[in-house]
Amino acid sequence: MIMDLMYINNNILKVGGGGMINDIRSRIDVAAGRKKAELVLKNCRIVNVFSSEIIEGDIAIEGGKIAGIGKYEGHREIDMNWKYAAPGFIDSHVHIESAMVSPVQFAMEVVPRGTTTVIADPHEIANVRGLDGIKYILDSSEAIPLNVFIMLPSCVPATAFENSGAELNAKELKELINHNRVLGLGEAMNYPGVINGEEGILEKLNLAKGKIIDGHGPMISGTDLNAYVAGGIRTEHECSSVEEMLDRLRLGMYILIRQGTAAQNLKDLIRGITKENVRRCLFCTDDKHPDDILMNGHIDNNIRLAIKGGIDPIAAIQMATINAADCYKLRNIGGIAPGYRADIVIIDNLKDFNIEEVFKNGELVGHDKKALFDTNNFVQDYSKVSNTVKAQKISPKDLKMPLKADVVNVIRVLPHSILTKKAVRKVDTENGNFKINKNLDILKMAVIERHKGLGNIGLGLIEGFELKNGAIALTIAHDSHNLIVIGDNDEYMVKAANEVIDIGGGIVICSGGEIKGTLKLPIGGLMSNESMADVNKILHKMLEVAYTELKMNKEIDPFMTLAFMALPVIPEIKLTDMGLFDVESFSFMEICLTEAE
Amino acid sequence: MIMDLMYINNNILKVGGGGMINDIRSRIDVAAGRKKAELVLKNCRIVNVFSSEIIEGDIAIEGGKIAGIGKYEGHREIDMNWKYAAPGFIDSHVHIESAMVSPVQFAMEVVPRGTTTVIADPHEIANVRGLDGIKYILDSSEAIPLNVFIMLPSCVPATAFENSGAELNAKELKELINHNRVLGLGEAMNYPGVINGEEGILEKLNLAKGKIIDGHGPMISGTDLNAYVAGGIRTEHECSSVEEMLDRLRLGMYILIRQGTAAQNLKDLIRGITKENVRRCLFCTDDKHPDDILMNGHIDNNIRLAIKGGIDPIAAIQMATINAADCYKLRNIGGIAPGYRADIVIIDNLKDFNIEEVFKNGELVGHDKKALFDTNNFVQDYSKVSNTVKAQKISPKDLKMPLKADVVNVIRVLPHSILTKKAVRKVDTENGNFKINKNLDILKMAVIERHKGLGNIGLGLIEGFELKNGAIALTIAHDSHNLIVIGDNDEYMVKAANEVIDIGGGIVICSGGEIKGTLKLPIGGLMSNESMADVNKILHKMLEVAYTELKMNKEIDPFMTLAFMALPVIPEIKLTDMGLFDVESFSFMEICLTEAE
Repeated sequence: MIMDLMYINNNILKVGGGGMINDIRSRIDVAAGRKKAELVLKNCRIVNVFSSEIIEGDIAIEGGKIAGIGKYEGHREIDMNWKYAAPGFIDSHVHIESAMVSPVQFAMEVVPRGTTTVIADPHEIANVRGLDGIKYILDSSEAIPLNVFIMLPSCVPATAFENSGAELNAKELKELINHNRVLGLGEAMNYPGVINGEEGILEKLNLAKGKIIDGHGPMISGTDLNAYVAGGIRTEHECSSVEEMLDRLRLGMYILIRQGTAAQNLKDLIRGITKENVRRCLFCTDDKHPDDILMNGHIDNNIRLAIKGGIDPIAAIQMATINAADCYKLRNIGGIAPGYRADIVIIDNLKDFNIEEVFKNGELVGHDKKALFDTNNFVQDYSKVSNTVKAQKISPKDLKMPLKADVVNVIRVLPHSILTKKAVRKVDTENGNFKINKNLDILKMAVIERHKGLGNIGLGLIEGFELKNGAIALTIAHDSHNLIVIGDNDEYMVKAANEVIDIGGGIVICSGGEIKGTLKLPIGGLMSNESMADVNKILHKMLEVAYTELKMNKEIDPFMTLAFMALPVIPEIKLTDMGLFDVESFSFMEICLTEAE
Repeated sequence: MIMDLMYINNNILKVGGGGMINDIRSRIDVAAGRKKAELVLKNCRIVNVFSSEIIEGDIAIEGGKIAGIGKYEGHREIDMNWKYAAPGFIDSHVHIESAMVSPVQFAMEVVPRGTTTVIADPHEIANVRGLDGIKYILDSSEAIPLNVFIMLPSCVPATAFENSGAELNAKELKELINHNRVLGLGEAMNYPGVINGEEGILEKLNLAKGKIIDGHGPMISGTDLNAYVAGGIRTEHECSSVEEMLDRLRLGMYILIRQGTAAQNLKDLIRGITKENVRRCLFCTDDKHPDDILMNGHIDNNIRLAIKGGIDPIAAIQMATINAADCYKLRNIGGIAPGYRADIVIIDNLKDFNIEEVFKNGELVGHDKKALFDTNNFVQDYSKVSNTVKAQKISPKDLKMPLKADVVNVIRVLPHSILTKKAVRKVDTENGNFKINKNLDILKMAVIERHKGLGNIGLGLIEGFELKNGAIALTIAHDSHNLIVIGDNDEYMVKAANEVIDIGGGIVICSGGEIKGTLKLPIGGLMSNESMADVNKILHKMLEVAYTELKMNKEIDPFMTLAFMALPVIPEIKLTDMGLFDVESFSFMEICLTEAE
């Protein structure tokens, strides 16, 4: 009971609170014109998401909230010269870890681009450190100029065919379900489990009763889809077609239109939007990588693309603001009106849609896409999520791959995709073990369990990378985030893997036995403590090494692709720390062909 | 702390709950087609409020909730023959007491007409019995086939110029604010208090932080309106013009389009609806009298009139369903989709809009506007809200009205209105006291304090009733609900008033000294324990007496009009238990003209 109470919404048991009443009074005084506001943004073209109009006027701000709209005077006044003022944008579904930086460093890049609220599903760090991982995201985002809400990861571990760092059942999740920034249960990826009524996932769905439950159920339809929704699942970000979108809209799901780095569904899905159903559509990014955020933007990019694609600008802005607030029942967020948080984005015009300034709780926090806040001002304690690589260092014998025959199953990587195909190839062997043939594009890959030092090493073969004379190792490997390493030489692979172990997690690229690039990701082995720009610089250099020194296939981003080679829910064939996995039959398989094949 | 916990949402501290998990599993099993549903409504034209379409299909129901939409089999199947199936309607703002019956009797008439959820503001009974009054509404509606949510009355007492039965400050309201059927704070009628930042109302606004706060702020605009909204007020049902409506929509308020008995704003306000803003518009009745409900309907009437007025039928239904659910953050109510409560209305067509059948939690509860449930099955304990008339019986000397002069201020009643005008008249006096002149239409009126037996009697004169040879007394007198009595003879007035006191509250009509009609309203002196139809019959008979025996002005409904003669917030001149009241100057006034006048 006491444990629950610690995380119960502070507001429930509080009343009176003189400070809060004074805040209300102060705001009312300003709104009524009895006193000057702390700040007035004058001469705005306000994007009114309630009435779908552009309203000209001043925005008076007091105590971090909007006090009044109209004609106001302030102690500070900023003339907006009739630029457009919209509510701060909401990313309705995002994995902050995919940006490879801490929450405050993430904020440093997305906030000046207009995103003032995110609804994050921290299942990456939860797979590494369980509840401590989630608490790290919550605690390290408490005071930053970005509203971070959390959906409790529902699928940790993702499957029974890999070892992750934690197991979060309903019993564990109960501790956080009533935190005031936890909105519900994260994407229920185990949709077969929901549809089949499995006890474990049902316990989690029940825990989230009365809150929101996110979905991840692509391609299902008919009675399966009804069953999925009947479990209480109310949002879907995995639609790739208008047909999927309409099926789900009709069953009461909100559609989260995704523009991520790998997954870009916006162009297709906006064709399914109508004046009548747009209120049930939101925007999200899901997974967006540093380079993509820095070059293209964040939710502002979703809006910009939608407008280019013919969506009414105000409707596009509603999708990024009030619609998400409605879906997730966020209060005082998502609109420009008295009482709402003063999270305001200033935009040049509704065609080019360049973000010029961003206010958060009435403070100017971004100008021309540069953060005006200092990340050093925010205490960052990641001690509970560091030193997360517990694997013992390896030696070449750990990578020995005994083969009974020389015709083998190989993972064939597809360009610009996280899907793989099964390929059957003939390989060289020596003393009954796999032997690399430098003329063949078949590399060894290993997935090394790294959370508990179990010693598991899953081995497989992979083609498509065209990597020569080197190795790459990293601890980003969805969803269990074990240590994945690829190479054409066992010694190089050992060097790369052991360096990753030494630095406590990250990405390492080896060329000819020499470490040529290192990205430290000390936070869970997933996130850097540095800025997104610095991380991006290092990644670019490492990509340079991959393409020019290791002569890699330029159609493939090695880090992004490797990060999905251990994900046993995406077809067709993957590798976990427990071995080679056939996604179609959802079971392990041999490297060598069996007699029957 | 313990007191708060008693009313904390049960769900917060519960997890697991095998029964609830089995419910989810059962529903999923049905949705997936693995087992037959308890009930299937076959061949429906489903009004889809999410996608704004009519979708043909079956509705599978299990455990009181909708399990699936499509093609389903059930243990029971009802062929709807392609009639329209809509979600149960939501009255977003209503005073149940105005229907003059208990919650279950109210349900008996509104549920078969399609209303399955109401959001009630019980300020009438709260003015009589405070928290006990609110608890009565909550407890007596716990198990009935109508979802009753409550907004805690924010203005008890309404003003300082009358004595009501209770005083509900933030301190008192705190006990109920976290009840799982309390959604927030009721209509903030004291809008001057809000706009001026008065401590008392601000404490209540603060108590409701994070919940919804209803508004009641007609006619205010500009900085006043901004100040009102800045206090956290998010809904408005008192709009009478499109201009008011748009002003408020733009500041983020939801507009509750009202079709009540006295106040009928629908015809005007629907002209302000657009495709873009309709999502922020809801329907309500506010105050609807028995005859009006029985003859015209309830929220079905709002929808019917809107359709007649040119509003798209699906949009009109959305206003009565999903829009209200969004505004009040109701979960699993307001749509037809898996997981939603099986509250379903069957309608003949979207033009005539006759309600044929109503299902509540999957049970058939209404057919052809007749309830199929027995009110006797619901335990009705109104012991805490009975015996609420504590006034001592009166005698003619209590009604003596000393007059210094014979030119006096008189309350002039206007037909079809609750507004009054000040009139100045010359009257007869005898021995320095008012004397009735049977040729003049000037009657005596008294407001007798009846909650605590204080002995207060406010006296005044009133014209417009044209009542002859009789008296009318009742304990419905907004908002304090003291005992109001009118007549052309002190003895008759005493007879009527004392009969009301004897029966524990109600309406009594006297003709020539003889009691000719009695409506007992033992619940708080406001509500009958009988059916709405029986109450209506008695009211009709009493109206008959009023018009034919007492020769009353037929342009005036005596009971409705008298019920507003003690309301000191509606202009121009009113009477409370503390005396004659000038609403314009918001202060008491003399019956006799002062020297200066």
